[in-house]
Amino acid sequence: MHKSRLATLIIDSQVDDIKKRKDFLAKALSLGIGDPNYENENWVPLEIQEPQPHIWLQKVKHQSRIHIDIETDNIDAEVARLQKLGASIFENKDKFVVMEAPTRHRFLCREPAA
Amino acid sequence: MHKSRLATLIIDSQVDDIKKRKDFLAKALSLGIGDPNYENENWVPLEIQEPQPHIWLQKVKHQSRIHIDIETDNIDAEVARLQKLGASIFENKDKFVVMEAPTRHRFLCREPAA
Repeated sequence: MHKSRLATLIIDSQVDDIKKRKDFLAKALSLGIGDPNYENENWVPLEIQEPQPHIWLQKVKHQSRIHIDIETDNIDAEVARLQKLGASIFENKDKFVVMEAPTRHRFLCREPAA
Repeated sequence: MHKSRLATLIIDSQVDDIKKRKDFLAKALSLGIGDPNYENENWVPLEIQEPQPHIWLQKVKHQSRIHIDIETDNIDAEVARLQKLGASIFENKDKFVVMEAPTRHRFLCREPAA
């Protein structure tokens, strides 16, 4: 049986500069900024306590929102499992699939981050 | 100094019947359904591991989205702290304040749940 878990909460932010905005979200949530090696112009990790899901800030062009990533060691099997539960595929990408829940939330089903 | 923390992730769901939809989100996230005493026609708690933030499903009339609750023992002081960081008040309620982050995410600042 393959594995899957709620791995990450992504705070999609429609901003010009995510690095300038990271302090608000980190301080508002009383969390530190994560490993600077993973930070770039599009992504900033926050510092969390295991087993809490990871929290990332992401610069996006669409409206600001929050989405969830489900991480799995077998994307095909996990997508099939989620489809059986009622989700649909919105977009197939190379290393992840954008899916839509029956509740209309879009989320990602993806391989573990490197 | 007052306290505050990222307390809850609310999965706002535009659905007719949140109880009929709860299984998708619980099974998709590999989480159990939480204490049935807290479940009603608008709310379903999921079962999480501390110190992970709580996760609730909420039936809403607006578009489905995910929002964050910041819990505090002093709403006035926490709202003032968040305003200083750049957030604004969207709506004042009795036991909580709806705020908007500089990233345009709406979130709640509220007292601890009873």
